[in-house]
Amino acid sequence: MQDVSSLVAQAREGRPRAVARLISLVEGASPQLREVMATLAPLTGGAYVVGLTGSPGVGKSTSTSALVTAYRKQGKRVGVLAVDPSSPFSGGALLGDRVRMSEHASDPGVYIRSMATRGHLGGLAWAAPQAIRVLDAAGCDVILVETVGVGQSEVEIASQADTSVVLLAPGMGDGIQAAKAGILEIGDVYVVNKADRDGADATARELNHMLGLGESRGPGDWRPPIVKTVAARGEGIEEVVEALEKHRAWMEERGVLAERRGARAAREVETIAVTALRERIADLHGDRRLSALAERIVAGELDPYGAADELVAGLTEGSAQM
Amino acid sequence: MQDVSSLVAQAREGRPRAVARLISLVEGASPQLREVMATLAPLTGGAYVVGLTGSPGVGKSTSTSALVTAYRKQGKRVGVLAVDPSSPFSGGALLGDRVRMSEHASDPGVYIRSMATRGHLGGLAWAAPQAIRVLDAAGCDVILVETVGVGQSEVEIASQADTSVVLLAPGMGDGIQAAKAGILEIGDVYVVNKADRDGADATARELNHMLGLGESRGPGDWRPPIVKTVAARGEGIEEVVEALEKHRAWMEERGVLAERRGARAAREVETIAVTALRERIADLHGDRRLSALAERIVAGELDPYGAADELVAGLTEGSAQM
Repeated sequence: MQDVSSLVAQAREGRPRAVARLISLVEGASPQLREVMATLAPLTGGAYVVGLTGSPGVGKSTSTSALVTAYRKQGKRVGVLAVDPSSPFSGGALLGDRVRMSEHASDPGVYIRSMATRGHLGGLAWAAPQAIRVLDAAGCDVILVETVGVGQSEVEIASQADTSVVLLAPGMGDGIQAAKAGILEIGDVYVVNKADRDGADATARELNHMLGLGESRGPGDWRPPIVKTVAARGEGIEEVVEALEKHRAWMEERGVLAERRGARAAREVETIAVTALRERIADLHGDRRLSALAERIVAGELDPYGAADELVAGLTEGSAQM
Repeated sequence: MQDVSSLVAQAREGRPRAVARLISLVEGASPQLREVMATLAPLTGGAYVVGLTGSPGVGKSTSTSALVTAYRKQGKRVGVLAVDPSSPFSGGALLGDRVRMSEHASDPGVYIRSMATRGHLGGLAWAAPQAIRVLDAAGCDVILVETVGVGQSEVEIASQADTSVVLLAPGMGDGIQAAKAGILEIGDVYVVNKADRDGADATARELNHMLGLGESRGPGDWRPPIVKTVAARGEGIEEVVEALEKHRAWMEERGVLAERRGARAAREVETIAVTALRERIADLHGDRRLSALAERIVAGELDPYGAADELVAGLTEGSAQM
């Protein structure tokens, strides 16, 4: 086992194997997890986290890949986290769809990781933020978080990001789909990809209407832009990057970035705390306390709520050691 | 609002509306929940809880109805809890499938309740045990808990019961289904229903083989019987009741009944405690504590695990008031 600080140092030098090892350590709830997280903490906060969501077929992977190219031209280090909420298999293995990423596979300034969250204790809320912290501490300037496959996880992915990009494509009935999935509330930037196809203007118009972009807003309010792209040919991608930079600048100016990151950190702490408490209660199964309470319930001397009160009071005795 | 003790008294007299009201109170996490549960505690422990699981089409409702008839002949009061993990709608309304129960609808010695658990905080583990407690305290001698619809919840239902009955039917590929669902580990009594159909003997044989019933067991071990029934005509139902009584007697003799009930109570307490802790953490969102921790994380001064430790330590201060 390599020691954590040397792994972190190597990760910051851009060594992909060190990054991979760190993500595995935080993802798998290893014994080193706490040490890794504590070591990473002062190194985080530099990365700009962009979430990409959208229905299958809108060109998420192609758009992500095109964004990587654009950011690399600026000399930025880029991390890509492809989250698959339907799969239990994590790791470096590129998914079928990831083939479009292959042009970046040999670029040392790009780190690509696929992450499965099915079966994870706490799911996406648990696994993704930790991997984002590793990529952040490793020196990524931009982290693109993309959902692979379908899922109700769009909103969850968006909640992990500084800026959320919602992708649509013409003629997929996306307007209605978007409304259904609630993604109209989460997009900071909207992209109509495959804009060389029929119906792109109609999709943009419909989206504009649904977002109420025609209505007047406060002078300081963010007005989500709608950018048309043909990601496969790189068209419009610079405009997406510009829109992202504008949103970032707007957030920094108004204190929204710190607010969002604070909310994200709060949710993260909450998930960890609930998971830890759940595990601690589970540990009590091997303990006299829980079984003594259970016996009193079976005997009719106590009800389960009274017992839960006693259990929680008992839990807190050893709270220094989670 | 009627007072709780008079509701409980009426429920014990067998008034269905009082039972219904009590179940609604415990199911909906009402303000009276704790009072109801505390009032019920000394009245519980008399009922024998039988879980019925099996794939759709094996005749669960018909079998449940036939068992009700058999127990009523013995003069016993019977509660039926039909749990539908896929539905968000609870209540007294009889589901389509429940029509087969209609012969018992006017019998004051039978209480039938359908219960939905989708969307429930804590799901089945939370909702069913509380309803079982109400039926138990109301004086039911036997409570039949049946899953409606499909689900991975067979194992969960079984864990709520004193005795688990697994139903199969010939020619449904049930052997393989059974192995997949893990129900081979949970059955105390197996029923091959629709035994007048072709393949009933083959299903029983296959089951016998898969259960390893041919192998020798310890002299005191329980050997799950396989009973063939035609529930629609009441055939074999007396044998099922006999098998249940044998299992109950065996459990009482060996201390297994108290053990199972203790484990059930422990799980129940655990679920309530975790839910309460989760709610208490959620309350902290409106509190300075969590946001102060989140700010320190964003500033890189603290990692989420360290923050979770502090949060849990802070939680325990007010633990008398959940």
